[in-house]
Amino acid sequence: MKKLVIVRHGQSEWNLKNLFTGWVDVSLSPKGIEEATNAGKALAAAGFDFDRCFTSYQKRAINTLQLILKAMDREWLPVEKSYKLNERHYGGLQGLNKAETAEKYGAEQVKLWRRSFDVPPPVLDESSEYNARNWPQYRNVPKEEIPLHESLKDTIKRTVPYFDEVIKPLILKGERIIIAAHGNSLRSLIKSFENISDADIVNVEIPTGTPLVYEFDDDFKFVNKYYVK
Amino acid sequence: MKKLVIVRHGQSEWNLKNLFTGWVDVSLSPKGIEEATNAGKALAAAGFDFDRCFTSYQKRAINTLQLILKAMDREWLPVEKSYKLNERHYGGLQGLNKAETAEKYGAEQVKLWRRSFDVPPPVLDESSEYNARNWPQYRNVPKEEIPLHESLKDTIKRTVPYFDEVIKPLILKGERIIIAAHGNSLRSLIKSFENISDADIVNVEIPTGTPLVYEFDDDFKFVNKYYVK
Repeated sequence: MKKLVIVRHGQSEWNLKNLFTGWVDVSLSPKGIEEATNAGKALAAAGFDFDRCFTSYQKRAINTLQLILKAMDREWLPVEKSYKLNERHYGGLQGLNKAETAEKYGAEQVKLWRRSFDVPPPVLDESSEYNARNWPQYRNVPKEEIPLHESLKDTIKRTVPYFDEVIKPLILKGERIIIAAHGNSLRSLIKSFENISDADIVNVEIPTGTPLVYEFDDDFKFVNKYYVK
Repeated sequence: MKKLVIVRHGQSEWNLKNLFTGWVDVSLSPKGIEEATNAGKALAAAGFDFDRCFTSYQKRAINTLQLILKAMDREWLPVEKSYKLNERHYGGLQGLNKAETAEKYGAEQVKLWRRSFDVPPPVLDESSEYNARNWPQYRNVPKEEIPLHESLKDTIKRTVPYFDEVIKPLILKGERIIIAAHGNSLRSLIKSFENISDADIVNVEIPTGTPLVYEFDDDFKFVNKYYVK
């Protein structure tokens, strides 16, 4: 039996302000810090240990992982960061208030952007301060690989191949892995793990700061999942 | 011109208590946290940036690096951890109060252990709670590679080959590197960089939480050094 632990970052400052975040690099809120620490304590209490850790290029996920490792006294574990695990890119909605956006575009349109499988939000203006193509963390990434907006389908095109090429072989070799990432990058992986339909995946909710354990057989077929609280 | 930044961790809880620490994995003190944050701010203000970061398996160095990267808004940078950059192993002195040790063994003996090049402190008892051979962070390291005490000469035997094999080729390729480590692991590197004699290196003092920039020519010959404050 192979195990993998995934965890969605704790509450961020922009979750708290009800803003669309996407690739904008915001910090954890005090509640998010507490959630991450509690996740680490719960994993330690349940006897979990890891060989290697993965996270995104975004500090709300990086810090969630660091706080988990601190609570587990495992800060020395290797951590690999990849933008392939970043949140879905929310395009021109990034930085906008969710309530105001619903007023402006209508609740149905916003629901479509948030909950459809393959409809991306508006394209981010290239001149926006939120254009990741101008940010130092992506300076070694080919510009055309850095999105200006993404549907969940687009997000899956980067997260699942990365998981399959980099992380899955390690799990099959017996490494115990934890991934700290984001609502939609984790939704992408869950879709792949459980073979969930395009229509159903958009309604799958992943709670913040709550470790979710996946169990697979030796052929990486999904067997079971449970939360560690 | 090639540059390398090295930084000694900020004050730890055991520095504050005047205990021999060595490989014992103690946390930064509040002052140490402040020192590390200030180091990051100073590096950002001086326009420094990095491609890759190195640190030890010890949380006082790991956390110093994390606080520096946080202050520089560079938490997404790759960080590699190696026990080869750990502090000198203080053997049977670990956990003892420095003043009490001087009373028990005499100030001259303690000075010899602390300041001689090739006299190791007493061997750590294998049953000690501080025996790293029983700690999870070293579970993948062959037991015989984990010291029970070290002279500075012994420390050099692990730090310098690691630097030469892993870090130096990256610097020669043009990568901008920061190393957050410990008084004696950094002393080892400085000895190698500047070709300092066995007699002189033991008197070289490295201030805590103060980035030290080394400049080398394209053949990795030492050219210049300066602090960033």
